[in-house]
Amino acid sequence: MSILENPTLETVPVTLGTRSYNILIGRGVLAEAGPRIAALFPKARVAIITDTHVEGLHAAALETTLADAGVASTRIIIPAGEPSKSYAGFVHVCDSLLAARIERGDVVLALGGGVVGDLAGFAAASLRRGVAFVQCPTSLLAQVDSSVGGKTGINSSHGKNLIGAFHQPALVLADTALLDTLPMREFRAGYAEVVKYGLIDNPDFFNWCEANATRIFGPGPERDYAVAVSCRAKAAIVARDEREEGDRALLNLGHTFGHALERIVAYDGARLVHGEAVAIGLALAYRFSHYLGHCPGQDATRVSMHLQTLGLPTRLQDVPGGCGTTAGLVEAMAQDKKVVRGSLTFILAHGIGRSFIAKGVEVAQVEAFLDAEFAAQSA
Amino acid sequence: MSILENPTLETVPVTLGTRSYNILIGRGVLAEAGPRIAALFPKARVAIITDTHVEGLHAAALETTLADAGVASTRIIIPAGEPSKSYAGFVHVCDSLLAARIERGDVVLALGGGVVGDLAGFAAASLRRGVAFVQCPTSLLAQVDSSVGGKTGINSSHGKNLIGAFHQPALVLADTALLDTLPMREFRAGYAEVVKYGLIDNPDFFNWCEANATRIFGPGPERDYAVAVSCRAKAAIVARDEREEGDRALLNLGHTFGHALERIVAYDGARLVHGEAVAIGLALAYRFSHYLGHCPGQDATRVSMHLQTLGLPTRLQDVPGGCGTTAGLVEAMAQDKKVVRGSLTFILAHGIGRSFIAKGVEVAQVEAFLDAEFAAQSA
Repeated sequence: MSILENPTLETVPVTLGTRSYNILIGRGVLAEAGPRIAALFPKARVAIITDTHVEGLHAAALETTLADAGVASTRIIIPAGEPSKSYAGFVHVCDSLLAARIERGDVVLALGGGVVGDLAGFAAASLRRGVAFVQCPTSLLAQVDSSVGGKTGINSSHGKNLIGAFHQPALVLADTALLDTLPMREFRAGYAEVVKYGLIDNPDFFNWCEANATRIFGPGPERDYAVAVSCRAKAAIVARDEREEGDRALLNLGHTFGHALERIVAYDGARLVHGEAVAIGLALAYRFSHYLGHCPGQDATRVSMHLQTLGLPTRLQDVPGGCGTTAGLVEAMAQDKKVVRGSLTFILAHGIGRSFIAKGVEVAQVEAFLDAEFAAQSA
Repeated sequence: MSILENPTLETVPVTLGTRSYNILIGRGVLAEAGPRIAALFPKARVAIITDTHVEGLHAAALETTLADAGVASTRIIIPAGEPSKSYAGFVHVCDSLLAARIERGDVVLALGGGVVGDLAGFAAASLRRGVAFVQCPTSLLAQVDSSVGGKTGINSSHGKNLIGAFHQPALVLADTALLDTLPMREFRAGYAEVVKYGLIDNPDFFNWCEANATRIFGPGPERDYAVAVSCRAKAAIVARDEREEGDRALLNLGHTFGHALERIVAYDGARLVHGEAVAIGLALAYRFSHYLGHCPGQDATRVSMHLQTLGLPTRLQDVPGGCGTTAGLVEAMAQDKKVVRGSLTFILAHGIGRSFIAKGVEVAQVEAFLDAEFAAQSA
């Protein structure tokens, strides 16, 4: 059955003028990569960037659909894991693309999770000053967040995602069937980003998540629906503010605390993966909003309860091995790229689905709040 | 005297919608960097990227104007020379910018020639996915070519400028007085790019160059005029075709042969600097155009004569140490990023100031022409 006749396929347009593109969501959509890419880029060659883990699971199927559509492809492999998102990884992918003679008019395709997508996207943005880019995200996190919106980049010793480019994909194929093999911990971590869209500005979706979360984890239509709602929410914000000069910052809900926690554990995924850091960050953002008098305590509690029900961490003490001190966390936040001229910007909330950008939050307030959080956990 | 009252100042606008900017040209314009940047970017900090050669000549003057205007600055030094335009140079500049806590809203300023501008520009494009960029070109080549138009990048072992970004500056300050200290060989090399603008589409300017070339080398108004005409020509083409999807390729006149020659000498500036390679490339492009029946022989001769008069190389045999074989040159051309799907694209000419894009030039024609060039030199 062609995806064009697939009644379960969701198409989410991302409206960005000449850089507009579609996100196709549904079970089996990866098998449409060949004809879709052939239609968009006649005669193009495709460089598939994937990692040592995903390669064995999905690369052959992708290559089959490309070959069947007459699209030539080459495979570039990176080691699985966050360390690939580095200067060295960037050099490796760029030089591999050059060695494969990928030219303007060809396509770089990311088959993998957020690491593969961010790294491949930055390489696509930089190769010959920019070639076309296609995302085939294989993790929930990548399907609902990192594959959409054009943020690409690598980490430096100074922090995550500090070097990169805005480079929109020309097509995103989010095959929800690929999530069947995703480890539970990784699925759960990606779910934190799904919940985030409800918390940002869609209280109805948060309500629906509370009622349906366990079904999202299964292979049924609820999963596809959750991915589609998430992509639509992100697409709407990105269309309004592609380069994060305003509203797009709302997508950072939970991320100022979250990034600081990841930094504290030195990005050790064994202790804390990104989505888990975001889960704690979301809970902290709501409790901080309540602490500052912006948000009812019952809403903050509801957020934490929902995340806990699904097995996600919500407190500083949930970080295996601990997460240091108030001073350490504040220092880690100050390293974040969302710091503007020394003052801290937070995404706070007036309630479920009522987030807002809070500029110029005083460090003293953050310190007092974190002191209280540390005290509560030792009590 | 403020530049605003300076009757010799030329302002060349580059019209690119929200990314439009001005090129200011004239003696002493560097002293206006402070007030100009303070006006464009209130409260911004400036990271000055310069090299070990230019630092001693001009960095102090730049820092004085910035300080006088209340603009805080920091200095990042790279080794002078082409090897800095590398992955390692990119990592060094990016990490130095992060260590200096340059944030969104701050400014990366390139003070130097093409290497500094291309490297600093790519770092500015990539730091936090893009910060503002100002060019203060200190060589003739950089003033008339590389500082204008937004092409940034680094070299890889696969070739020059293969990794980079389109990232327009917010301001270009071309202080022609800085050229007083430029070594003659470097000035002459830059002059090849000046002549190029006459050859592309401005026969009157080529006539004027023939009549005034020696005065361009002096500190008089002819130099400022030549820089301004060159910048206006480039600005017009860039405004029509920012990302080189059409007309902008005309700027590559002389560069397909030129880049191949640079590759053959392994980018050894002791043997051949970029402008010298372009000079030979321009002469070859006209002789090749004549060879193919597109261009009168007298026009090809006129181009070579003018370049020779100024001491620029125009023949394959002018490359110190030789430049290999026809097969080697064709292989080097095939590595160039202007190769599209295996066929060669050349910029050819119907005459002085009448260049055109020639797609699908057959390799056999190039080979026969180069064989004839090699034969002529050994005759």
